[in-house]
Amino acid sequence: MEIGFLGLGIMGRYMAGHLIEGGHQLFTAIHETPAAPELVDKGLSVLETAEDVARKAQTIITMVPDTPEVEEVLFGEHGVAAGLSPGKTVVDMSSISPIATREFAKQIGELGCDYLDAPVSGGDVGAKAGTLTIMVGGADAAFRRVKPLFDLMGKTVTHIGPNGDGQTAKLANQIIVALTIEAVAEGLLFASKAGADPVKVREALLGGFASSRILEIHGERMINRVFEPGFRIDLHRKDLNNALSGARALGLALPNTATAQELFNACAARGGGGWDSSGIIRALEAMANHELG
Amino acid sequence: MEIGFLGLGIMGRYMAGHLIEGGHQLFTAIHETPAAPELVDKGLSVLETAEDVARKAQTIITMVPDTPEVEEVLFGEHGVAAGLSPGKTVVDMSSISPIATREFAKQIGELGCDYLDAPVSGGDVGAKAGTLTIMVGGADAAFRRVKPLFDLMGKTVTHIGPNGDGQTAKLANQIIVALTIEAVAEGLLFASKAGADPVKVREALLGGFASSRILEIHGERMINRVFEPGFRIDLHRKDLNNALSGARALGLALPNTATAQELFNACAARGGGGWDSSGIIRALEAMANHELG
Repeated sequence: MEIGFLGLGIMGRYMAGHLIEGGHQLFTAIHETPAAPELVDKGLSVLETAEDVARKAQTIITMVPDTPEVEEVLFGEHGVAAGLSPGKTVVDMSSISPIATREFAKQIGELGCDYLDAPVSGGDVGAKAGTLTIMVGGADAAFRRVKPLFDLMGKTVTHIGPNGDGQTAKLANQIIVALTIEAVAEGLLFASKAGADPVKVREALLGGFASSRILEIHGERMINRVFEPGFRIDLHRKDLNNALSGARALGLALPNTATAQELFNACAARGGGGWDSSGIIRALEAMANHELG
Repeated sequence: MEIGFLGLGIMGRYMAGHLIEGGHQLFTAIHETPAAPELVDKGLSVLETAEDVARKAQTIITMVPDTPEVEEVLFGEHGVAAGLSPGKTVVDMSSISPIATREFAKQIGELGCDYLDAPVSGGDVGAKAGTLTIMVGGADAAFRRVKPLFDLMGKTVTHIGPNGDGQTAKLANQIIVALTIEAVAEGLLFASKAGADPVKVREALLGGFASSRILEIHGERMINRVFEPGFRIDLHRKDLNNALSGARALGLALPNTATAQELFNACAARGGGGWDSSGIIRALEAMANHELG
């Protein structure tokens, strides 16, 4: 299949690589290529603009940082929308606002095209391994058509519901991940400040109900004081911002999400926007004047 | 070995049963037996008071609801302390305050006896199956002596450190469990209120980093509106109370633990003290005027 791929960043370049290896012909815009020269060697075709890509490809995938970037690549000058013709499919795999997503899907639909929101979880590790979790919103027929492409990039592919539901599921994921990391931070910091060895406490708790991949991985990062991402606090703040503004619009209180966001903000204020999310413990430590390690 | 067991409640009676099956001679006080007539048939010896039990047994295990009950059974009239002689070991498997625990250990130590704090996690299911997680604080020699008894009752037995550290680890466990349940509640409620099917969202998230036994089990309880315990909100409030008052004494802020406690309080105020901890979602729903199911 002829596929357009716009957003060859840390994750996108691996995802695009899997599609090329799957035998598909990939197109991108010229400004993308400096980020992924290895894909050009593998056969990535380089066109001038996103509009050209949309003209050439049947399915156009976007994988960019946030809502404004999706809007720009789709509806900006020489953007995807300008090159679309009826029957094509736009697949946004970025993690953005579900509310804006519904608006984008409507506008793409008015051009006679399908739109899927298909954000992923699993980070660059999952992107590289082709084991991403992909949460999809959109029409059933479009989902079934694009499913073989998703299967090249991900392991767990779930059609949640209509447009926006993929982004909603992703935000639910980011809420749960952030709050579980914060939970581990409060638990280990309490234990440490009370004089217990957090290494032993984590070990004991991995046997019981408190066990999770987050206690395993992020708990270890907190203990070893290794805050290289992983997943950056700035990106997690972006997701929680989308969740909290969504919740406000829906008439919903998310008290612990709000507090976690404030703790991430405190990290960012101390220059920690690039820390892994597990760095949230540093904001708690700053309040307590106590360090875990 | 001759073992005293005081506290034959929902969990204690199973734990005592495993010790009897392990070939040990068990003693208890007369007021305990109405709760566990089946153990008398199996050979449980019934004495008059806790003092008598301590006189007869080498190792005395307590498994009662909270700090005041431990204090009463150990140091009240005709309590354990009155019957102790040097060389015996007191093992408190209740979940109580780490600070009070250190005081109890000191007083027992002054009688020439060892003290272990060995709270458990895993609930009545784990108690029955003999698969509890046991977190132990106390001297190494005492731990090694009692270890074969722990192995009859539990699967993961960890010596965390000196007295109080077992209780500290248990509180860290309860913090992480409560906040992870609250995390799942915020995530699923957000998804549901935004119009996505929480069943699909939970299913998708079980494939990724948000995955945990709590998303699996408590997430399902929230979706099915089944709030029978499991673990009762009233008991979780007791643990978080110990964590929060400990944190206050240590000079530590636990913002999301404090909020979770307030949400549990809101449940209790609506008659939900006996609900499973997953009922915390009802407090969030009450604020949003929206129900998940």
